[in-house]
Amino acid sequence: MTDMLAPGARIGILGGGQLGRMLSVAAARLGFVTHIYEPGANPPAGQVADRVTTAAYDDAAALKAFAESVDVITYEFENIPTEALDLLESHCPIHPGREALRISQDRLTEKTFLAGLGLKTAPFADITDLDSLKAAIDKIGTPAILKTRRFGYDGKGQARLRGPEDAEAALADMAGAPAILEGYVNFSHEVSVIAARGIDGQVACFDPGENVHRDGILHTTTVPARLAPAQRTDAVLLAANILNALDYVGVMGVELFVTPQGLIVNEVAPRVHNSGHWTQNGCAVDQFEQHIRAVAGWPLGDGQRHSNVVMENLIGDDMDRVPELARERDVALHLYGKAEVKSGRKMAHFNRISR
Amino acid sequence: MTDMLAPGARIGILGGGQLGRMLSVAAARLGFVTHIYEPGANPPAGQVADRVTTAAYDDAAALKAFAESVDVITYEFENIPTEALDLLESHCPIHPGREALRISQDRLTEKTFLAGLGLKTAPFADITDLDSLKAAIDKIGTPAILKTRRFGYDGKGQARLRGPEDAEAALADMAGAPAILEGYVNFSHEVSVIAARGIDGQVACFDPGENVHRDGILHTTTVPARLAPAQRTDAVLLAANILNALDYVGVMGVELFVTPQGLIVNEVAPRVHNSGHWTQNGCAVDQFEQHIRAVAGWPLGDGQRHSNVVMENLIGDDMDRVPELARERDVALHLYGKAEVKSGRKMAHFNRISR
Repeated sequence: MTDMLAPGARIGILGGGQLGRMLSVAAARLGFVTHIYEPGANPPAGQVADRVTTAAYDDAAALKAFAESVDVITYEFENIPTEALDLLESHCPIHPGREALRISQDRLTEKTFLAGLGLKTAPFADITDLDSLKAAIDKIGTPAILKTRRFGYDGKGQARLRGPEDAEAALADMAGAPAILEGYVNFSHEVSVIAARGIDGQVACFDPGENVHRDGILHTTTVPARLAPAQRTDAVLLAANILNALDYVGVMGVELFVTPQGLIVNEVAPRVHNSGHWTQNGCAVDQFEQHIRAVAGWPLGDGQRHSNVVMENLIGDDMDRVPELARERDVALHLYGKAEVKSGRKMAHFNRISR
Repeated sequence: MTDMLAPGARIGILGGGQLGRMLSVAAARLGFVTHIYEPGANPPAGQVADRVTTAAYDDAAALKAFAESVDVITYEFENIPTEALDLLESHCPIHPGREALRISQDRLTEKTFLAGLGLKTAPFADITDLDSLKAAIDKIGTPAILKTRRFGYDGKGQARLRGPEDAEAALADMAGAPAILEGYVNFSHEVSVIAARGIDGQVACFDPGENVHRDGILHTTTVPARLAPAQRTDAVLLAANILNALDYVGVMGVELFVTPQGLIVNEVAPRVHNSGHWTQNGCAVDQFEQHIRAVAGWPLGDGQRHSNVVMENLIGDDMDRVPELARERDVALHLYGKAEVKSGRKMAHFNRISR
């Protein structure tokens, strides 16, 4: 109890996008005051935060002032430069911790870590040049996907190989960046577990959600997911295994492929996750508040679900649907306050509640 | 559809307390940007708003700049000075409108208006001096309550008369302010209807909640309330009657006494209401979003309830309960970000969800 950050304490959030925005609102709900750090001007999170610092991640003075103004720091994205983290951490605790960032910033490190825990992943190989790529294709087979090891999201930095003849073109797409080849997994559907671990080591998971992607971007998450009881238990235990191994504090998104051979870990994200947005209208404590509770040393919510939910993203021109959606019964809209509608840009989502 | 305020539009909120704070968050959820006007420094709503103006209600320059910076103005409390409203309204539309404020700012005007609609109220009389008070006591009887006509809330500006002998002392308590004598109503319990009316005249009501007060301050609201089906219908029709008569736009709280002779209107509040906080965890669209939808010309949510809820206020030192409440299953906490805990001060509330 003594380690609980008291209401009125200040929480710093790195990143001012929609995840930072929803984290800020959740923090306020628990009586915390938020400070957003974001290089881009007029970030969505700034509209619902007490303070905003607009500065780059190599601005040492701004980073120091930010870290000194808050009681704990968290983040909405995993690709924070190491130097910035070093500087911030010398002034203020950061949750989730460095090990989770190190793992998740690099696909090869992540897959190696997961395999080391005895978890199943897609077959993978480190790719440094054409020779290693050819050798990997021999071993893993095709189709396969070549991905940059770092800074990939929403399908960016990826090249598909239908057959061995695509090797050179795919490698060229990586533009010299370190890469990883991943074999295809024959899965029936994808689910994700939004898991949380408190400072005291307590773990709580939300019900797994079933994800459908379009054009490499999450389209819908449906809860409950199609999972046998044993699979549901496996999914939750597997997520807890990952969190405990990292001595993790906060919410993590764990994407899993469902296959006849069991669950295969696709990837992990050391933050609140798009596939957990359904919790806003399905649970007393949603993933954003759960994350804030964890980093603030509060007891976690238990993840109990009171309703079935289908979450759907509104991307780019999907925003034209807002007036119609606003009329629908049991639809809860969540707009991100982004000034400009762009193709492929996540603008909003909605949760459709059912009983 | 053409009258819907577009995402990105600016909503001005008069008052920076907890109601303004929760309105601001709801507005952000629909993509609106908020601007708080509040005389007091560091208002709770400012922590989750894009802009805050700290200025008095007689600061003409600040009022004008505020009104010119937003697309529509709403408020969290009904006692806004008339001169400020005149000035604001000359620059920007205000919802709910002036008639609702005129009615609700004066208990005598309000009771007369309600009686004029054919609704039952407690017996009442205009009190201007000791003679009129004595005459009113003869007519209404005792026990009764003498109240100032204006600026009363949470039991302030009220004096009880156990018998006619209390007349002089009660009148002295009014300190010369215009007053109203209200007879006692023999009621079994109090309920309130949180009703909303859109710009298009559409009306939607949330399920009536049952209120319990302590020391003149709302303690709990329980939904569903104890009401027979016919009473439930009466309550909703009665609220709709009031909203339509005022050509009202926004959310209104209507407090009703349940008696063997039917429902008696206690009072109305032209704003979101403490007894509607349960909607945050019981409905897809809560009272705060409902109010924002109305003033922004959006279609209303239908008020459909997905869960049973008990809302409880945390007043003053009740804040000590937060660490324990944070551990409870199905409890959703809502803290107001107030720096100082004071006796009798509303600091937070929580919603306990059940199915």
